[in-house]
Amino acid sequence: MAGSSFGKIFHISTFGESHGKAVGVVVQGCPPGIEMNERIIQKALDRRKPGAGPSSTSRQEPDIPEIMSGCFKGVTTGTPIMILIRNRDADSRAYEKNAAVFRPGHGDFSYQAKYGIRDWRGGGRASARETAARVAAGAVAAAFLDLYNIEITTCTMALGGIYADHFDPVCAGNSWLECPDPEAQKKIEKKISQVKAEGDSLGGIVQITARNVPGGIGDPVFEKLDADIAGALMGIGAVKAVEIGSGCRAALMTGFENNDQITEIGFETNHSGGILAGISNGDDIVAKVHVKPIPSILKEQKTIDENKNETVISTKGRHDVSAIPRINPVCRAMTALVLADHILRQRAVKENRHP
Amino acid sequence: MAGSSFGKIFHISTFGESHGKAVGVVVQGCPPGIEMNERIIQKALDRRKPGAGPSSTSRQEPDIPEIMSGCFKGVTTGTPIMILIRNRDADSRAYEKNAAVFRPGHGDFSYQAKYGIRDWRGGGRASARETAARVAAGAVAAAFLDLYNIEITTCTMALGGIYADHFDPVCAGNSWLECPDPEAQKKIEKKISQVKAEGDSLGGIVQITARNVPGGIGDPVFEKLDADIAGALMGIGAVKAVEIGSGCRAALMTGFENNDQITEIGFETNHSGGILAGISNGDDIVAKVHVKPIPSILKEQKTIDENKNETVISTKGRHDVSAIPRINPVCRAMTALVLADHILRQRAVKENRHP
Amino acid sequence: MAGSSFGKIFHISTFGESHGKAVGVVVQGCPPGIEMNERIIQKALDRRKPGAGPSSTSRQEPDIPEIMSGCFKGVTTGTPIMILIRNRDADSRAYEKNAAVFRPGHGDFSYQAKYGIRDWRGGGRASARETAARVAAGAVAAAFLDLYNIEITTCTMALGGIYADHFDPVCAGNSWLECPDPEAQKKIEKKISQVKAEGDSLGGIVQITARNVPGGIGDPVFEKLDADIAGALMGIGAVKAVEIGSGCRAALMTGFENNDQITEIGFETNHSGGILAGISNGDDIVAKVHVKPIPSILKEQKTIDENKNETVISTKGRHDVSAIPRINPVCRAMTALVLADHILRQRAVKENRHP
Amino acid sequence: MAGSSFGKIFHISTFGESHGKAVGVVVQGCPPGIEMNERIIQKALDRRKPGAGPSSTSRQEPDIPEIMSGCFKGVTTGTPIMILIRNRDADSRAYEKNAAVFRPGHGDFSYQAKYGIRDWRGGGRASARETAARVAAGAVAAAFLDLYNIEITTCTMALGGIYADHFDPVCAGNSWLECPDPEAQKKIEKKISQVKAEGDSLGGIVQITARNVPGGIGDPVFEKLDADIAGALMGIGAVKAVEIGSGCRAALMTGFENNDQITEIGFETNHSGGILAGISNGDDIVAKVHVKPIPSILKEQKTIDENKNETVISTKGRHDVSAIPRINPVCRAMTALVLADHILRQRAVKENRHP
Repeated sequence: MAGSSFGKIFHISTFGESHGKAVGVVVQGCPPGIEMNERIIQKALDRRKPGAGPSSTSRQEPDIPEIMSGCFKGVTTGTPIMILIRNRDADSRAYEKNAAVFRPGHGDFSYQAKYGIRDWRGGGRASARETAARVAAGAVAAAFLDLYNIEITTCTMALGGIYADHFDPVCAGNSWLECPDPEAQKKIEKKISQVKAEGDSLGGIVQITARNVPGGIGDPVFEKLDADIAGALMGIGAVKAVEIGSGCRAALMTGFENNDQITEIGFETNHSGGILAGISNGDDIVAKVHVKPIPSILKEQKTIDENKNETVISTKGRHDVSAIPRINPVCRAMTALVLADHILRQRAVKENRHP
Repeated sequence: MAGSSFGKIFHISTFGESHGKAVGVVVQGCPPGIEMNERIIQKALDRRKPGAGPSSTSRQEPDIPEIMSGCFKGVTTGTPIMILIRNRDADSRAYEKNAAVFRPGHGDFSYQAKYGIRDWRGGGRASARETAARVAAGAVAAAFLDLYNIEITTCTMALGGIYADHFDPVCAGNSWLECPDPEAQKKIEKKISQVKAEGDSLGGIVQITARNVPGGIGDPVFEKLDADIAGALMGIGAVKAVEIGSGCRAALMTGFENNDQITEIGFETNHSGGILAGISNGDDIVAKVHVKPIPSILKEQKTIDENKNETVISTKGRHDVSAIPRINPVCRAMTALVLADHILRQRAVKENRHP
Repeated sequence: MAGSSFGKIFHISTFGESHGKAVGVVVQGCPPGIEMNERIIQKALDRRKPGAGPSSTSRQEPDIPEIMSGCFKGVTTGTPIMILIRNRDADSRAYEKNAAVFRPGHGDFSYQAKYGIRDWRGGGRASARETAARVAAGAVAAAFLDLYNIEITTCTMALGGIYADHFDPVCAGNSWLECPDPEAQKKIEKKISQVKAEGDSLGGIVQITARNVPGGIGDPVFEKLDADIAGALMGIGAVKAVEIGSGCRAALMTGFENNDQITEIGFETNHSGGILAGISNGDDIVAKVHVKPIPSILKEQKTIDENKNETVISTKGRHDVSAIPRINPVCRAMTALVLADHILRQRAVKENRHP
Repeated sequence: MAGSSFGKIFHISTFGESHGKAVGVVVQGCPPGIEMNERIIQKALDRRKPGAGPSSTSRQEPDIPEIMSGCFKGVTTGTPIMILIRNRDADSRAYEKNAAVFRPGHGDFSYQAKYGIRDWRGGGRASARETAARVAAGAVAAAFLDLYNIEITTCTMALGGIYADHFDPVCAGNSWLECPDPEAQKKIEKKISQVKAEGDSLGGIVQITARNVPGGIGDPVFEKLDADIAGALMGIGAVKAVEIGSGCRAALMTGFENNDQITEIGFETNHSGGILAGISNGDDIVAKVHVKPIPSILKEQKTIDENKNETVISTKGRHDVSAIPRINPVCRAMTALVLADHILRQRAVKENRHP
């Protein structure tokens, strides 16, 4: 019932508007004794920063995190960790003109229907800027998952309809786009430049992989690990579809094809995406998100204002052409948050498993 | 933290194993004064029953619901509604032989990793039988949504790789398969018979549509309406992918193509699937699920037992060939539960929206 | 937001009205592998049954619990345990006459204000009968606490203004009243008979003691162990005050008097009641509840009906003279539920306490 | 499961240690359109500041709140409101000497048992300083309750064993002590001076009154309004007992004496404290807390250090002699938070109460 909170034991609450004073997060439930400092969080935030690629916004937020509580002498204390990220480069002027106009593809219309009032500067809470707080919290979750050697990586599989022809779960860092296929990346970069010139934007596909997740994490009914991951990923602004394991392809396979047969050395395939009946099976956890194109575009679009008058809008704010690859660390963060939470839940249960 | 509970205000807790004494649900948070009786619930459960089609299990559960609390003189009282559905036709003999063997594609392996113990008769909580309780709860949610004229329908779009060539949101009731295209249905029925003979199973695609959902329902950050719907649908046993609105196609479109332009009479398209920034915009809410084939198949598969010995298994229990169309009412129920919950949440907020 | 649910990890949901078909509970979060059967629950319920003492109701419910799910071969499986207790001796005739009259001291008036509708037969959910479900759930919690040798006992310290002159935490079972002082008990029994003859009722004081609770359970801010115990005990129908440790006396002491000084063998006193800053310190946890007299009395009282007409009422239902000692097992159950929940929470946190 | 969070719909999460960089709170669920600014919060915080009275600490925190999100143009937007209060006068030197020593009556011992690590500077999260965040959140809740004309007041009824001889619910503001009886106040001030000179401290009793709470707020089972108020008040550091309405006296009365008889103009008495069966009845809500003496005293006390060595301690930090009256605004804040939350819950339910 707290819409800006996420998780049950590893529990975060984010706050802050795109063009307000700050965004940030309160992280509860992180066990004590884990090394934590601003450098660790900064490193994660840097991956979300407007990048070197041609698709990037010109808004330049240094995104400097400040740990305000919950750490003492370089480790977590088990108490709430508040991380504050001040907004510095919030230029609201571009929004003033269209303060009363609903931008197509954005939440302005539905936001107004819900609250009857809204901070029209940059989308308020619905801005992608809010995800900086998620990435900061995800860095704390990742530090906890390190104790289990769990590693979460992402890989850009497609952008603008151009697909990488092979897959490598650890693309992050190798290219600004996190694309495993240099040839595809070249084509994508060309397409981005062309679409940018047209005042339009692009969508794409990102795969998330979590390795070394022990078996037995999750729940067989509502709080299934795949249900929670799907909810977490669909809860990222631009995501319109989520697949787990064989995903959409599963609908086309027979049971014999889709079942992962088991031998003494493990599962022969991983169509399950590492999750059976909502519980991890020890295999890699694999999810895919389909990301819609950035809705803020220069091209003129029909819309209405708060008084239902028809008008046209051309969004001149500082925006990326594609949410990829800046959405990738957000996907990693959300996955890390789900896994940290479920691992803590399982720790509560497991002790006297074999009485 | 209660893995068998779902919802915040409209809150349900299911219980019961496939081959235990009963399955059932406690529904909390349903407002008082809503007409409710066993006939209403029975009607919903009948839609989930093994059907007349060729894909069905031979297990014949009458699924008779008994309201044990929370109703008085034919209406809800606002207190917890417990609905009990006794298991009558639970024949566990087929499971005894393979009690210690992990069935591929099922939760046996991961279940054992989590609990260290399991009721091996029919999958325990991971059985599709548990969804009878969800459907019963969904019938209560649907009765509440009736006050808003909200209607949730499903439509089978594909099965076994055969796609309906057109779409009709209200297929339920017209055919056992809920397929809008009689030609496609004939081909599907043929394919089902053939695959059944081969001892194999099939997956498919179901679309869920919710009409008359008022704008303003949802939340802009984690508890987004689309995130909650995606989590709810992915939380149904066989679902491997969830799409909202344009879904996977969004990744291939440009912003100009995917944005729903707005005129004074509404949105020109519905690529958003009725949800913008996690909040309903008044348009139809549209989701799609990709359903994997039933994992229980006659075909022999490699697997291991609890002692890691390799073996083969051929599942001779009474099983459907496809989870569709019996999964359809479960999709409707979960969508109804999400909407009922979010509408109640919004009622808490809205009163002094315009102070 | 689910008013009939309690606990975060060890999570229960009760259902059922006093004069409906049944009361019962769904217990989630109980770890797997704990011995559980109907006899264990029956034993706890028997302690709550109308007793041999002169204060008892003549309603004779056998209170036979039926475990409907969550156990397999005599142990818990980690899945939801549903316990059903059918109502057998529900005689609603006494209530019909006053169906529209608000009984003083009862929830009829406030219930009507909340729901606008109510099951007037025996108080509905507000009936003490609902506590049978809590006692059943408490028996499961107690079985889990047994793994830690945690023992929760109660002792009747006063009734009708007559105080026991000494204290013994383990009174239960020695007398129907759980009173440690036979002389006081005699006086109390005499008083009960006298007050019963007058058509009136009595209140009293019960102490709850939990032994062997390890240090480190609880939380320093809102979810303090003492806050949760106080909330749990105040959530029992007739309780009007809760004390922890030195309780009300603490307000009269100086810091030097009230502080528990520490030596190498432990705390010299236990004014803290085993809880410091919301976290257990390893000492006995001690709470006291002040119980109001049963509001249902034969003596005529002024009241109004649903149409605001003044009238008088004399409650002729079958009622106890005092909620003590039948409230005692409910106090034990609620304390057990709080402790089981907090121990599971701590298990989630502690593992890598010393990294 | 988030120990520093409170409330279901009106939901807060506090953070910050006594001697860290800041304390603060994230407030979720506050409806949009409510006037809110830093002056409103400052006013509430000023009531919690070290006062003019002789019982006060010399730590002088200006407690300046900064609203970092959730407000736009002077009103709430319905999104999370983060309020930051920086620590300015945090002098940790007094704590360094005894960093490894457990202060009697404080949470040091139990804290160490829970976390295995602690910020020993001023009690960390267990410090009364954390309550500044609660008071800030309470100011937001109070602004919401203003829409209902709900007013929450406190009154110091006793301190150091000296009782006010009469009662006035609105004492706040009339005297630094919030004592309704000037004669008693004089005696109390004398006692404070004397006890301070002895290096000791004092406890007392505070009454909380909430007026104009509409009937029908609360829940009949676990989430009773009195249960939630009791839990909230017992969750304030120094509180050792909570009474509702007739409280401890109820245990000494007969049913006829304790029941509030009803006439057409309302309840004749208010022994219920405005709550029947967990639901408000429209009468004043009345609670009382018994506050233990401040544990930090100059008098030498026996204790042990982290290595179990015996030692003595004399607490030389800057501390109040009594938690009263600085605890009073915290009691008001917690009561406001409970009421705001329950009113929002009821708003969700009530609309179609009369179908």
